[in-house]
Amino acid sequence: MSEALERAVKEIPPKSADLSAWYTAACLKGELVSYSPVRGCVVLRPYGFGLWENLQRELDARFKATGHENAYFPLLIPESLLVKEAEHVEGFAPEVAWVTQGGSEELTERLAIRPTSEAIVGTMYAQWVESYRDLPILINQWANVVRWEKATRPFLRTMEFLWQEGHTAHASAAQAREETLKILDVYRDFAENVAALPVYFGKKSAGERFPGAAETFSIEALMPDGKALQSGTSHDLGQNFARAYDIKFVDADRTIKYAYTTSWGVSWRMLGGLIMAHGDDRGLRIPPKMAPIEAVLIPIVRSNDRRAVEACTSLSARLSDAGFRVRVDARDEQPGWKYSEWDVRGVPVRIEIGPRDVEAQTVVMARRDRDKGEPGQRESIALDDVPTALRETLADIQRSLYAQAKAFLEAHTYVTTGRDEFFDLCRTRAGMVDIAWCERAECEANVKAATAATTRVVRPLAEIGLACVACGEPAKARAYFAQSY
Amino acid sequence: MSEALERAVKEIPPKSADLSAWYTAACLKGELVSYSPVRGCVVLRPYGFGLWENLQRELDARFKATGHENAYFPLLIPESLLVKEAEHVEGFAPEVAWVTQGGSEELTERLAIRPTSEAIVGTMYAQWVESYRDLPILINQWANVVRWEKATRPFLRTMEFLWQEGHTAHASAAQAREETLKILDVYRDFAENVAALPVYFGKKSAGERFPGAAETFSIEALMPDGKALQSGTSHDLGQNFARAYDIKFVDADRTIKYAYTTSWGVSWRMLGGLIMAHGDDRGLRIPPKMAPIEAVLIPIVRSNDRRAVEACTSLSARLSDAGFRVRVDARDEQPGWKYSEWDVRGVPVRIEIGPRDVEAQTVVMARRDRDKGEPGQRESIALDDVPTALRETLADIQRSLYAQAKAFLEAHTYVTTGRDEFFDLCRTRAGMVDIAWCERAECEANVKAATAATTRVVRPLAEIGLACVACGEPAKARAYFAQSY
Repeated sequence: MSEALERAVKEIPPKSADLSAWYTAACLKGELVSYSPVRGCVVLRPYGFGLWENLQRELDARFKATGHENAYFPLLIPESLLVKEAEHVEGFAPEVAWVTQGGSEELTERLAIRPTSEAIVGTMYAQWVESYRDLPILINQWANVVRWEKATRPFLRTMEFLWQEGHTAHASAAQAREETLKILDVYRDFAENVAALPVYFGKKSAGERFPGAAETFSIEALMPDGKALQSGTSHDLGQNFARAYDIKFVDADRTIKYAYTTSWGVSWRMLGGLIMAHGDDRGLRIPPKMAPIEAVLIPIVRSNDRRAVEACTSLSARLSDAGFRVRVDARDEQPGWKYSEWDVRGVPVRIEIGPRDVEAQTVVMARRDRDKGEPGQRESIALDDVPTALRETLADIQRSLYAQAKAFLEAHTYVTTGRDEFFDLCRTRAGMVDIAWCERAECEANVKAATAATTRVVRPLAEIGLACVACGEPAKARAYFAQSY
Repeated sequence: MSEALERAVKEIPPKSADLSAWYTAACLKGELVSYSPVRGCVVLRPYGFGLWENLQRELDARFKATGHENAYFPLLIPESLLVKEAEHVEGFAPEVAWVTQGGSEELTERLAIRPTSEAIVGTMYAQWVESYRDLPILINQWANVVRWEKATRPFLRTMEFLWQEGHTAHASAAQAREETLKILDVYRDFAENVAALPVYFGKKSAGERFPGAAETFSIEALMPDGKALQSGTSHDLGQNFARAYDIKFVDADRTIKYAYTTSWGVSWRMLGGLIMAHGDDRGLRIPPKMAPIEAVLIPIVRSNDRRAVEACTSLSARLSDAGFRVRVDARDEQPGWKYSEWDVRGVPVRIEIGPRDVEAQTVVMARRDRDKGEPGQRESIALDDVPTALRETLADIQRSLYAQAKAFLEAHTYVTTGRDEFFDLCRTRAGMVDIAWCERAECEANVKAATAATTRVVRPLAEIGLACVACGEPAKARAYFAQSY
């Protein structure tokens, strides 16, 4: 988007009318991002970076609690390393940005800016691992990656993005699979309990697998337009990368074996998911656990009576000390203008203090998740009760946003056995369409060609003897189909 | 260093005999870094990344306490943006890695991997700033940068490195200068009170200034070989970058003005400084506040008596709950072998628990900062007293490492008025050589040609009428001269 167009976004269009226009406007007016003059790249502004910091803190604590450590691997990967795993390079080569000059020197070998780090991590693990005693290696990296893209959409599709990528090596296939599923559950837990995004989770079909993986698992959220958003992936790489990069170890039985590796990632795409899922016509609604600012305090100043400002400042200090993320907005603007600005930015709770509140030792607390005039949207509270009330209100908003998204997902999940209905639901972006499926690549390709939908996740079949709803061949699994971002 | 050579580093050579060989061996054997197959790039291993995380946590808290927020700007900078500030591009062009291909596409304009971000940040600030009400902007970024280098030395000189770069914009020259000095003091405070590195701080000479800056300030530590290490820089950019990138605002008096900007950075080079300053012949000695592991607990197991392991595990849980960073080493190896391994890695305190300790409800606590046999190096302590004793011991080690480095700096700071002595001290890398100086670029160039030393920082002259010790012209300042990394 040009700078002129960006400045022209004065109003956020209704979310229901045009989700795509609403999304872009909400991201820009909420000051999460700015478009940059660099093709395909956005700037993550302080408020957007605040979201990322909360994601980092929450996920990082979960990684460490499950025994992982952080490390940092080089950004630039020589082409000769990248090409060692054949499927991997085939999958990523079209998306690679290449460094060919350093200073005034032409390089003899091109360097890829990492699109992902399996190649360099595998190379290093081969050096570090000698014996089964060196395993498992459980490492995560917070990093930027680059994938050459034509389109730009804040968080959802950008040339450079921020993510975390975990890379582990194990002595057995069972341990690698256990790790893959453990992380999938960390992602599910984070999505549901922090980002307030209910997800379906499970195995990807062969066609949707990570290039070079033995098996890919993912979590999938549903957006308001009925399209799925893959929000985190966890790959069991089997011995594919260990063979390509020569990660061998002497096992307890003294034989030399290839290690089993995994990789897994969540990117800032997750932020796009929570923005799109929770926002409303007034702008962002950020789940409290992800909110850079949990509550904004707004003094209402009448005729030079500054006591409301002092009351806000003193309450803010108390709340900060109690561990809340708060901000006082004492700018010289009309309160109504400020209310609407903080509504756009999705701050969960607004605390208003006017002259009468100062007299009465009260505040007015307003919830961003409810509409104006809705019961409980705006309430007067005794000053002394604010910390307790704020804690309860934030928890209630977190629950409420999750419940709304969960109700939406359930209302837009269709179990069907009719072929025509299945194709119709897929074509019209009705949501997650759950069928008995044959697991054949040809069938998935046919559905995609006819409807633009693909499998999102696949799970075991509970009944036997069913036919694939899409093609009539014997069913081997249940699958959610949906169009996707 | 080749992989073969890396593996061949079996012993750490004495620090006093060959600082350079000691440094490389200590970084590798301490498992802080590995050399990578990517030219000029090292891998920061989990233990090394733990150091970086502590630096990040401590500095980030100080930035936020002084009103700064984090954000993220694109990695790739179009050449046309980079060239806008003439001195800046002249300074950095020889060090830039250029992306010229994306996927299969040849780019019409080269993209620089950021060597630093003034160009892209300035471009964005020009979009964000309209009125004096939008100022100041106080933003920091944690990021990777690339500067094309021939040599590789862990932390001190690598092609890619991690750093933080602050970028601020202000309405007046006085505010920009105040910011520059405020950050310089944050850096000094961090270096002295966290990294235990005493530093000299002040203005750089014109010849040592950041390309495009109006004034550069730095903190300078002294390494054991008598060379200085510039460990953090803070630049007052005046209006140079605001003019180049068109950062203008309407001031309160309704006139349009260019903003005043600053930038400032600390990189993982600071880690190299603390490794080199504090280590000894046995390996690393990490200041407790920076230590990824403050105390390692080692059970001494005799003939299948596992009670020592249980005692370590239970004490470790108690210490973790009390906020200490601890690890139990219950590997099936000889205690002496483990002691020496954790000595190499510089863990400040070792806690040993043997069968007799289990009976007596005691532990043995050993300090890494003292030599074997030195009074107080190894003491028996009642189990109940461990948390208190550990807290005191860590604080004492922190103080002691700082005091040793401070004594070294003071012993190797020479105030001289004799020209021959000055040149001798510079040539022989005696340390920081403090003279009255003329501030002339020609004089600095002459000293450099004759001795390899340059000015480190310059400060006001207290007396009048002095002559420059190096050249005899009228002195205008005092300056520390030293050879430097």
